[in-house]
Formats: sequence, C-alpha cells, structure tokens
Amino acid sequence: MSHRTCLSVVLAAGEGTRMKSAMPKVLHPIAGLPMVAHVVKTACGDEASDVAIVVGRQAEAVHKAVAPYAPEAEIFEQTERLGTAHAVLAARDKIARGYDDIVVMFGDAPLIEPEALADLRAGLVDGAAVVVMGFQAPDPAGYGRLVMQNGSLLAIREERDASEAERAITFCNGGLMAIAGEHALSLLEAVGNDNAKNEFYLTDIVSIAVTRGLKVTATEAPYESVLGINNRAELAEAETIWQRRRRRSLMLAGVTMTDPETVHLSHDTEIAEDVTIEPNVFFATGVSVGAGAFIRAFSHIEKAQIAEGAEIGPFARLRPGTQVGRKAKIGNFCEVKNAVLDEGAKINHLTYVGDAHVGAKANIGAGTITCNYDGFAKHHTEIGAGAFVGSNSSLVAPLTIGENAYIASGSVVTQDVPADALAFGRARQENKEGFGRRLREKYAARAGK
Amino acid sequence: MSHRTCLSVVLAAGEGTRMKSAMPKVLHPIAGLPMVAHVVKTACGDEASDVAIVVGRQAEAVHKAVAPYAPEAEIFEQTERLGTAHAVLAARDKIARGYDDIVVMFGDAPLIEPEALADLRAGLVDGAAVVVMGFQAPDPAGYGRLVMQNGSLLAIREERDASEAERAITFCNGGLMAIAGEHALSLLEAVGNDNAKNEFYLTDIVSIAVTRGLKVTATEAPYESVLGINNRAELAEAETIWQRRRRRSLMLAGVTMTDPETVHLSHDTEIAEDVTIEPNVFFATGVSVGAGAFIRAFSHIEKAQIAEGAEIGPFARLRPGTQVGRKAKIGNFCEVKNAVLDEGAKINHLTYVGDAHVGAKANIGAGTITCNYDGFAKHHTEIGAGAFVGSNSSLVAPLTIGENAYIASGSVVTQDVPADALAFGRARQENKEGFGRRLREKYAARAGK
Amino acid sequence: MSHRTCLSVVLAAGEGTRMKSAMPKVLHPIAGLPMVAHVVKTACGDEASDVAIVVGRQAEAVHKAVAPYAPEAEIFEQTERLGTAHAVLAARDKIARGYDDIVVMFGDAPLIEPEALADLRAGLVDGAAVVVMGFQAPDPAGYGRLVMQNGSLLAIREERDASEAERAITFCNGGLMAIAGEHALSLLEAVGNDNAKNEFYLTDIVSIAVTRGLKVTATEAPYESVLGINNRAELAEAETIWQRRRRRSLMLAGVTMTDPETVHLSHDTEIAEDVTIEPNVFFATGVSVGAGAFIRAFSHIEKAQIAEGAEIGPFARLRPGTQVGRKAKIGNFCEVKNAVLDEGAKINHLTYVGDAHVGAKANIGAGTITCNYDGFAKHHTEIGAGAFVGSNSSLVAPLTIGENAYIASGSVVTQDVPADALAFGRARQENKEGFGRRLREKYAARAGK
Repeated sequence: MSHRTCLSVVLAAGEGTRMKSAMPKVLHPIAGLPMVAHVVKTACGDEASDVAIVVGRQAEAVHKAVAPYAPEAEIFEQTERLGTAHAVLAARDKIARGYDDIVVMFGDAPLIEPEALADLRAGLVDGAAVVVMGFQAPDPAGYGRLVMQNGSLLAIREERDASEAERAITFCNGGLMAIAGEHALSLLEAVGNDNAKNEFYLTDIVSIAVTRGLKVTATEAPYESVLGINNRAELAEAETIWQRRRRRSLMLAGVTMTDPETVHLSHDTEIAEDVTIEPNVFFATGVSVGAGAFIRAFSHIEKAQIAEGAEIGPFARLRPGTQVGRKAKIGNFCEVKNAVLDEGAKINHLTYVGDAHVGAKANIGAGTITCNYDGFAKHHTEIGAGAFVGSNSSLVAPLTIGENAYIASGSVVTQDVPADALAFGRARQENKEGFGRRLREKYAARAGK
Repeated sequence: MSHRTCLSVVLAAGEGTRMKSAMPKVLHPIAGLPMVAHVVKTACGDEASDVAIVVGRQAEAVHKAVAPYAPEAEIFEQTERLGTAHAVLAARDKIARGYDDIVVMFGDAPLIEPEALADLRAGLVDGAAVVVMGFQAPDPAGYGRLVMQNGSLLAIREERDASEAERAITFCNGGLMAIAGEHALSLLEAVGNDNAKNEFYLTDIVSIAVTRGLKVTATEAPYESVLGINNRAELAEAETIWQRRRRRSLMLAGVTMTDPETVHLSHDTEIAEDVTIEPNVFFATGVSVGAGAFIRAFSHIEKAQIAEGAEIGPFARLRPGTQVGRKAKIGNFCEVKNAVLDEGAKINHLTYVGDAHVGAKANIGAGTITCNYDGFAKHHTEIGAGAFVGSNSSLVAPLTIGENAYIASGSVVTQDVPADALAFGRARQENKEGFGRRLREKYAARAGK
Repeated sequence: MSHRTCLSVVLAAGEGTRMKSAMPKVLHPIAGLPMVAHVVKTACGDEASDVAIVVGRQAEAVHKAVAPYAPEAEIFEQTERLGTAHAVLAARDKIARGYDDIVVMFGDAPLIEPEALADLRAGLVDGAAVVVMGFQAPDPAGYGRLVMQNGSLLAIREERDASEAERAITFCNGGLMAIAGEHALSLLEAVGNDNAKNEFYLTDIVSIAVTRGLKVTATEAPYESVLGINNRAELAEAETIWQRRRRRSLMLAGVTMTDPETVHLSHDTEIAEDVTIEPNVFFATGVSVGAGAFIRAFSHIEKAQIAEGAEIGPFARLRPGTQVGRKAKIGNFCEVKNAVLDEGAKINHLTYVGDAHVGAKANIGAGTITCNYDGFAKHHTEIGAGAFVGSNSSLVAPLTIGENAYIASGSVVTQDVPADALAFGRARQENKEGFGRRLREKYAARAGK
C-alpha cells in the first residue's frame, strides 16, 4: 500500500481519571514505553504514514514522548471534550491536506499490530468509504455490536439500542476505523450531537455513509489488539499481553527462557540466538545481548550491551553504560555502571564497579569497591589487562592500575599502581593470646549477661 | 443490620492430616496471617459480631492467632470429633445467650468476604430460619447439591444419595450457614447420627427445618469465597486468589504494578496512590508505602515504613524497624534493619546498616558496614545530617559521626567523629615494583603450573 | 508386568531446526535434565527395560546425556532420514533379540509418565499386536485421528485424508506405540514408502496389522503426556507443565510454597516435610532440603545440602559443595561455595565464604570475605566452633582461626589465629578537626562547583 498516502489520527485526549494518577493516561508505560508511543510506532510502521495526535491538556508531555518515534507528528489540542468525532476534527487542518487513507487510532489502545492496520486499510483499497475494526467478544455485553449483511456493515448498534437478536451478536466494535480520505471531512462534519450526552460520536459516520450509499465494511482483529486501557489493572493486563507476544517471538527465534512468564522485556530489548535466560530476569530499556550469552536468574539489566558468550548473574545489576565484553563475567551481588569490561574480564562477587575500564582477563576479587565518588564528583578507575585485584580492596578513584599488577587483599589503594607491581595498603595483623576470651567476658558483662 | 445481634461460630477443629504438618491446619498462613484469623477478621467485619471458635486440641495456639483481631472471641474445645453439628454445639453456652443471628463459618475457608456474609444474614431478615451459602460449581461432582424450588431450599442432597436429575444440579453447598437465633439450638439438637459414619451433620438442619415448616433459603457466593483448604496445594491456590484480589484493588486505587503476578502482598500491606512497583517484590507483614514511592524489582520488605517519593531497590532488603524518609534511597544489595533514614539520605550499594540513625542527605558509600554486633549486644550508630561515609568503611558501634563529617574510603572507624571533621582509619599504601610479577611466578610454581 | 521383557526404542534423530540452536534438540533441558534423559528415565522406570536410542548425527553427545540413567542403553544411528518406521528399524538388531514388548517413544516428548506406558503395555497383555497412545485434543486440527470401533483401532487417519465425519473425531494419535515383540519386525518391514514424501511411516503398521487380522487398540493419555517439542516456546511450555506437576506433588507431601509458580525445581530436587519456600526460589540441580528448613525469597541454590531447620535467604546464593548444618543460617547477599557449615553457624549479611569449614555456632560478621583465591589456586579457610569474625574482615587463605577466637571488625587476617585469641589487623583511626569541611571545599572547587 506504499503508493497510498495515509494519515493516522491518534486520539489521546482522554482524562484517564480512573488511572488515579498525576500522569496523563497515555503516558503510562507498557514495556518501558508510553502507551501512546506504541500506537505511534505502529502507525508509522513500515511506511511513512503521517501522524496527527489529538491531546487534551498535556500537549508538551505527549509530544516529547512520541518525538523519538514520529519526529514529524503534529499535535492538535482538543480544548473541549465533545466526543470522538469532534476529537478527530481537531486535526481538521491536517486531514484537509488530502490523504488517500485516514486511520483513526486510540492512544490508550497500545496493543494494535501492523497486520490489523493493514487489513483495515485494505478495505479502503477494495472501495469502502469506511472500514471499522471489529473483534469477537467472549462476552459482548457493553460493546457496540457490528450488524453485518453480505459482508457490509449496516450499523454499529449500542447495547442500549440493540434488539434481542442484535444483542446476541458477538462481533463488536473495536474502535479503530479507516476512512477514505475523499469522504473523511464530509462524513465527520455530518455527525450531529442530538443524543443524551450531546456528544459527537465517531461511530455515527457508519450510518451516515450507509445512508449516502457508500460502501462500509468491517475487519476482524484479535480481541487483545483493540484492548483499551482505563485503569491500572487493565494497564497490567496489556503489559502481560505485550510481554507474552514478545517472549514468544524471541523463543521462536532461538532464545531459551526457562520460565518465560518471569522474564520482563522492554520495548527495545534485543536478544540474539542461543541465549539462555533463567527465571526472574528484568530487562529495562536499552539492552542488547549477544549470541550464546547466559543470563542467570535474578538479574536486573538496564542500558547495557552484553557481548557474545558473556555470563551475567545470578543477582547481577547492570546499570546504564555497562559494556560487557565477549566471555566476560559479572557475577552475584555485583553492580556495574558506566564501565567497559574487555574480553574475559571477571567481576564475580559482592563488588561495585562504577566509572571504570577493566582490561581483558583482569580478575576483580570478591568485595571490591571502586570508590568513584568523593561526595562531589565521579572519578574514573582504569584497571589494566590481566590485573589481579585482591578481595575486599577499595580502589579510590581517580586511579590507574597497570597491566598484570597485583593488589593484595584488603588493600585501600589511593595511588596509581605500575604494571607488574604489587600494591599493599593494609595494616599488619596482631594476635593477642587469650584476649578473645577476655573480650568476650568483658562484653558479656557489659551486656548484662 | 447493626440492629441485629450476631454470633459467628467458627469451626476450626479439623485435624488437617492432609496438610502433613506439625502445625494445626487453621494456623497455616494466607498473606502472612493464619487462615483462621482471616475468617475471624471477616466475621467481625463492620460491626461487633461476637465470635465463638471451636477448636480441637490446640486451643491456646488458635487463641493467640486470633486475639489481635477478636480479643473477646471465646474458644470452645470439641473433645470428640462427632461431626459439624456436634462441633457447633460445642459453643452451646454462648449460642444460648440469645442472638438474632447465628452464622456458622469454617476456619479453613479463609476467602469468605463480608458481602457474602451480609447476603446470608439478609435471608434471616427476610424470615428464613436457615440460610445456606451456595455456589455454582464448574464441576459439581462430590459436592452436596442444593435442591431449590420457588426460591426455597428443599434439601441438600449428597452425591451418593442424588438422583440422576439432582446430580445435574450445579448449585452446590458451600458449607457456611446462617441460622435464626430463636431456632438455632432446637434445630441443632434435633440432628441425629443415624448414618454410615455415625456423625452429627450440620447440613441435616435443612431437612429438619423444612419438616417443621420453617423457611429455608440459599444465597449464591462466588466459588472461591467458600473454597476450603485441605492440603498445601489448596493452600497455595487460596493464597493466589487472595493475592489477585488484593493486587487488583490496589491497582484500581492507583498503584502501578508492572507484573502484578510477581508481587507478594501481606494482609496488612498499605500502599498509597501513584506508587510504582516493579516485578518480583515481596511485602512481608507490617509495611506501608507513601505516595509516589518507587519500589524496584527484587526487593524484600518487612515491618518497614517508606515515606513519599522514596526509592527502594532493586535488590534491597528492608528488615523490621526500617523507616525510610521522604525521597530517601536504599539501593542494591543493601540491607537495613532497625534504622531511621531522614529525608534524602542515600544508602545505595552493598551496604549493611543496622541499629542506626542516618541524618538528612547523608550519603553512605558502597560497601559500608555498620558493625553493630560485638558478639554479645547490638550497638547504635548515629550518622549526622550531610555526613559523607566513604566506600568500604567499617563503622564500629557504638559510634557517633557528626554532621557534615567526612570518612575516608576504606576506613575502620572506632571512635566518634566530630562534626565537620575528617576521619581516616586505613593503612598507607606501598607499591613494590615488579613484585606483582614475582608473586605470580611464586604462586604459579606453588600451584604446580 | 515384570515377567515380560521390554525394549523401549527412543527416536531421537530429529534435526530440530526450529529450535534454532547449535545443540541437538533432544539435549535441550527440562528441569535441568536433557529431554531425552527424561524419556529414558521413564522408560527404565520401575523395572529393567532395555533401551535403544536412535539418533541422527550427535550420537556421542546423546549417549553421554542418557548414560547416568540407562548405562546399558544402546545407541543406533539413523544415517538417512527416511521416516519413523525406518528410524525404529535402525534398532533392528536389538529388536531381533526377542522381547515380549516393543515400546516406541520419542526423545522430544519428555512428559510421558510411567502410568501411560503401563496402560500401553497392558494392551499387549490383553492380546493386541499394536497399541497406540491416543489423547483427547482440545483442537484436533493437524493431528491424525484415531478411528475406533468397538474398542478396536481401525485406522489412524491423517488430516488430509479424513472425511468430514472423521475430522470431527477428537481422539488423536499421540505417537507412542507398543508392539507385540513377536510381530514387531514383520510389521515394521511391511511398511512401504509409496506416499508423497517417500517416507516409511510407523503409523502404517496399524492398517497392516488390521489387514492381517491382528488386534489393534488405543489407550488414552493426558494431552500433556504426549506433548512433542519443536521450538523453544514449546520447550518452555513443557517446562511449565513439568514444574507444575512436581510442585504439586511436593505440596501434597507437606511442603509449603507461598507462590508455587515462582519456585523453580530441578529434576533431582529433594525437599522434606514442613519445609517452607517463599516466592522466587531457584533450585538448580543437586539440592536436598531437610525437614522444617525455611527457604526465603530470592534464593538461588545449586548442588547443596541443607539440613533440618536451617534458614536460607532471602537473597542467598548457595553454590556447589555447600553443606548447611542443622539450624545454621545463610542470609542476605551471601554467597557460599564448597563450604561446610556446622550446626547453628551464621553467615548473615553481604559475605562471601568459599572453600571453608565454619564450626558450630561460629558467627561471621557482615561484609566478611574469605580471600580464597590468589590468582592461581584456591585455598582453604578453617573457622573454629564459636569463633566471632567481626564485620568487614578479610580472611586471607590458607588460614586457620581457632575455636572461640575473636577477629576485630575491619581486620585483614593473614596469619593463623589461635583459639581464644583476639586478632587485629587494621589501622588506627585519626580525626582531623575541620578537615572534613576543608576537603569538601577542595573537592567542590575541583568539581567546578
């Protein structure tokens, strides 16, 4: 359909009071991305569809959320809330520029998929003036029923107006709609507000088009594709559906997940073939994982690149700016941020590495802390290839440890260590015979025992 | 119904052998609260219902479990196990005191909700002598069927006695029952034990009442409300239902849960609006979370107060007595117990803080340990507002660090540090050129390589 | 059936290209055990069934995987892939040795249970020459339908060859089959390849046997028992089913799981009565847990023995070779490997203990690290009964700390400590009044603030 021009009008003006949130509803995230940005990404899909977003009051916040995915999207404000047809007409100026297809989407229905949109627009190619996206409702109560005849949509019947027979219809209105550009403004402007709430309903263009003798049809999309979100329980439900879809596509592409239901993915998580992911792994945004890597249980990974064959966790936290080299390892109770690990480097136990470069095959002992913050600024730690940092060391940055240097366990290292050197920074041990017993007696007495 | 007096008789004498446990069945917890305490809490609900609990052998343990929720509950021992009617009559003395309504509940059916109890008692208000709580069974096999006629309950028919037609009934006996106080003792005492097991069955009062021409009805409750627990698989099932209910009510009230199925709540967890909870968070008992707080993945929180806007985790453990001030932060691999953090204090990495007060905006570096235990007693650490504790420090309690004091990284601090002072407690570093290489050679030789 | 000899022929030659993996399909694990090993374990079940495994190219890898469970299993290579009957005949030499029963199983269907196999073989006892394992398909599309008449199996009808009436049959071919030994080779050799793909189909022996007037029947197994795995989404599905089965059997045996869906078990995990397992626990292979132990949330346990009444976690990592004594404790953010803890020993916070023995009631303070690795070899740490290791100590191995010895907090311990002695290894603290303020000013200036 690349020869047809298209404008997606995304309605995002709903107040979302049932979210009980200070944040506009359409900015609540699914998989780490505001739901309206999901809609806009799908709208822009394969081809360059223009996008108009109709917002209520928080135009700037919405614009900022969608900008990375649709830099040329235009925002229109609907100052009064007078119904969906009125909302679409907030973008009248853009619609009037002339498009083959106008697609109406909803900012709070983020699970829509490109295939369903393509189906919708295919109806216009087949000569329809209006195409409604329907779905089979397990329980149709409350939805508008799609009254079909010989493949044509005769009417969208609201529950309260439906006959007994119509109420038995399970094919329902999913909200999304495609309108032939040549008819769009004329149909939208014909919508009236002579109803109980005095609102201009977009669904009314169906009967208007039918009356005019125009062809009106409906497509069928999966129920979950048209799921609208009105409260945080539905937000969680949508997140669950999104996660299941994405996990499944990764598994089919060759990723092993021992317990997929416990793996949290973000909208931009990239995972290569033959990666194994144990249960309870959280991928925040901005993560890529190379082939054959092993991500163990209870890992939390954010804005990090993990190269082929690396091993992460269990209980690892990778924070933004972490780059893990091939076959490098970050083990349990280790936190790494803004740090590059070269091939085969190991950080295995109870360690904090921040603002650092760890050379190839360097081994960072258990309990090591890069003291990167002096209370005012962050400083860099450079650890050479093959260096051995003994356990429980404190590396006070800025600091450079040369290649193959050796830091004795328990050292506080405040000055640079040359390559091949040995650094000590610890007190000499003294044993006091029998004093352990005496100390115990003293403490026990003090504790009143 | 507050003008009617009510006695809830909670049957809790079952042996629960299928639990395979040294602990009485009704003390196994759901959401951190013994199941019998759930029942008693619901019984006491909005109004002051009296409670009688009929137990088998472990009267004291049961009494202790329910005391916080029903201090005036009376415990009755059923010394012989002769059936449910016999069990109710163990509380004969209390029933005889005269109540408008007698409600029979089960200590192993903890999911009962106040609405279902109110429905049951409403039947008494409408003139019934007995009201049975029914439910629609997806598969009725094994349940007693409720034989209804014109809104009246004619009989409870056990599976083995049911005709073909009766076996098709899916409306089944949920066990709970309301009995008009004026008829209660008379009906209960009329129950005989002329049956295969020679037991006195509570359900027999239905036919007795019908025979006497008294009105008997049934209400319908959701299946899960009457779920009885007989083994640990059913215990887990009940826990799942409880958790889903509570998560949903929190989400509808404005709490975001990214993956609600992985958030464990306790019976008394309180979470305010616009709190975000990432996956895999465990709320043990006694936790409250203020508005806008952010609880990150893999956090384990017990008996702790978290103020507005605080950030917890990932990988944080808050133990009893932790109070986290506004916008304070407890980060990864940090354990805090019996400690107060003032506004904006930060404990971010691999740190143990116990028995301490951390002043406003104080910053505790990575790997810091409050050495609060000397093997005999626990001691307090006081950290002043604005203090900076360098990474990997050991703070040997009892200890006071003054406001804006500065502790050098890797220090062992054994004496108080005045305000604005700098404290050092670490050895001077020495580098030995080339010794790293020699050490490697020595170790390699020793390791036989 | 122990008086009947049996040969299980396990077909494991499939390429498994949809797994998108460098590893052969049948070696992908379920509950930590290669799926083909599950099949072989079940085949060998109660009695000594002989096993023949038919593989494609990776004979050696498959043999290694099954050897621990069926040391005498013989491996046969199917060099050309000419269909399932051809695959079974790869084991012709072994079949020809003469068995009462031949059972054909599939290396990629690991959820088969002994009961279903017993049912299958019982059909042979009843005089059948061929018994097919059927299942009721919720949606039969794509499966071969079992056409039954008076308890006999007339035919397996493939979807494409089925009449309208046959397509309505929901009783489908699960693949597994028992063949009377006396007829096996004759039936298998009668199979031809006159079909679209020119393959020899095992299912054809049904019509051949029927034509010969032999008795052919079918048994019914649960759907999940015959589930075949073709991609990693199905692998995860099988894992889920396996986990649910095993969790349920443990719960019924007296193990409490607060949220069973988040507990990962391995094929050999052993857990005794009255153990409580909080959510999010990962049992890797080789773990046993004694009665009354308490495994808290977020624990990761591998090749470890946990004795009665011990408490693990939350956030504990037990690595191979850990033995936790009665009532011993390993707490949060602690990693233990290759170490024995005697009764009542405590390792509670942010500690790494490797290659060590910790005596009874010894207390290891927060942040302690056994420095067991010098960059070349691992060394042992011996900690005597009743010893107190102060927080944030570094224990540089090889090292022996005597009974009831006392290590001062923050010490680096490099030499042995006698029993009852006190060991120090830390620098003396110095306070510099006002220097904290000056340092702040200097750093702030340097940071350009």
